[in-house]
Amino acid sequence: MTELTIEAVTAMIGRGRNHAESLGVAMTLAVVDRAGHLVAFARMDAALLATSDVALKKAKTAVLFDFPSEALWELCKPGGPAPGIEHTNGGLIPFSGGLPIHGDDGQLLGAIGVSGGRGAQDVEVANVAVGPGRP
Amino acid sequence: MTELTIEAVTAMIGRGRNHAESLGVAMTLAVVDRAGHLVAFARMDAALLATSDVALKKAKTAVLFDFPSEALWELCKPGGPAPGIEHTNGGLIPFSGGLPIHGDDGQLLGAIGVSGGRGAQDVEVANVAVGPGRP
Amino acid sequence: MTELTIEAVTAMIGRGRNHAESLGVAMTLAVVDRAGHLVAFARMDAALLATSDVALKKAKTAVLFDFPSEALWELCKPGGPAPGIEHTNGGLIPFSGGLPIHGDDGQLLGAIGVSGGRGAQDVEVANVAVGPGRP
Amino acid sequence: MTELTIEAVTAMIGRGRNHAESLGVAMTLAVVDRAGHLVAFARMDAALLATSDVALKKAKTAVLFDFPSEALWELCKPGGPAPGIEHTNGGLIPFSGGLPIHGDDGQLLGAIGVSGGRGAQDVEVANVAVGPGRP
Repeated sequence: MTELTIEAVTAMIGRGRNHAESLGVAMTLAVVDRAGHLVAFARMDAALLATSDVALKKAKTAVLFDFPSEALWELCKPGGPAPGIEHTNGGLIPFSGGLPIHGDDGQLLGAIGVSGGRGAQDVEVANVAVGPGRP
Repeated sequence: MTELTIEAVTAMIGRGRNHAESLGVAMTLAVVDRAGHLVAFARMDAALLATSDVALKKAKTAVLFDFPSEALWELCKPGGPAPGIEHTNGGLIPFSGGLPIHGDDGQLLGAIGVSGGRGAQDVEVANVAVGPGRP
Repeated sequence: MTELTIEAVTAMIGRGRNHAESLGVAMTLAVVDRAGHLVAFARMDAALLATSDVALKKAKTAVLFDFPSEALWELCKPGGPAPGIEHTNGGLIPFSGGLPIHGDDGQLLGAIGVSGGRGAQDVEVANVAVGPGRP
Repeated sequence: MTELTIEAVTAMIGRGRNHAESLGVAMTLAVVDRAGHLVAFARMDAALLATSDVALKKAKTAVLFDFPSEALWELCKPGGPAPGIEHTNGGLIPFSGGLPIHGDDGQLLGAIGVSGGRGAQDVEVANVAVGPGRP
């Protein structure tokens, strides 16, 4: 994969939804392109409304910094080097559930954000969604 | 259908995308629930970035008033009874491409917004997306 | 040119500034990438403060629709098919001064927005800025 | 220097870019005038998108208070006298990379914000950018 296509992204969302269902957790999934613009989004039945904004901001966090969203915590935590950075760029999320999506050559293609479960569940669903092609 | 489910909404988006492809037009589709919150979203490859915000606002317009988005024009057009109403609710769209989605008993379930083609194409795709079950 | 680089964009801004000076008009120039994010910006001495937001929104308009900014007027003018579309995407500009920037294969690379002169002057400066490599 | 000119600011951005390149770090640089309005901006190739908003807010922080951006931390840190002040003025940045720019008589002319490297790198680039004329 060298470019995010709606075909590939729809498949990601589908895999993620299936896995979330297998975990018995209602989640929201968002995929953004490398510029942070939304490509696809799905809020599962019974997912809390709060998960919509959180999923989107996790995806944005992951793509804006090209790291898993929880890595932002190292920057903004008490005593960290960048206090308040989570309030930039329209609001970011310093906990897990956002993952950058890289292409075959390691280039940044976009990111996924998942919200609705416990942190480890969100990450698990994000990884399953992005799928086997992920480096 | 008495409730929008992610299953049904995903199928709507899929039908809409297929129909847009058959028209040879890259579009963005957004479906919101009866409260105006996003349920699912897809931006097709090569769809203009401008279509994202427009599709979402068409869907919001349709659900907030329970009418096709272009009906807002009657309210906000020069000489109309509600000048400026298109600037409320975070921004609304008074042209076509937004359709409310009703259940079997006519109750409002949500809305779809489509952007990317000419007005008639957007409406056609929205209708195909919502599908045969539409009253 | 197949990608906007800061080198190329800085040269664009420089050419534009020089041409604006030769016209005796203080202008603001903004260049955005294909996703609408700012790459470079320059406000000339004595340029009116109002030109900053206008230049940026002209560039955004041009890139979001892949057309010269004044083409938006055909959509939003009285009797046009998309009334109010200038209020989407955070605010757009339906008059001249914004130009998309295309690569050698015609692909969209970004856009420039120029504000400060009369419409024809803004367009002239934008064209000179983008330069001879422009298709 | 008694006034920020686009000539001087363009030279600052150029010096800063050159120094960032010599450090091997892709950065974004923003210069604002004494009123906090953008004068010039450059996002280097491969600079993280997150750096755009951060650089701009560092510059705003530095000019609004006439101190290096990290001095805001003394005001907003836990137990400090102005909790939440970093959320005023559209969002401020309480860590390093923003420097006020003063004229020959010490008067405030504007500020620069640099983002993309570690804190010390951002400050180093900001200092090189502002240049030898800095008091």
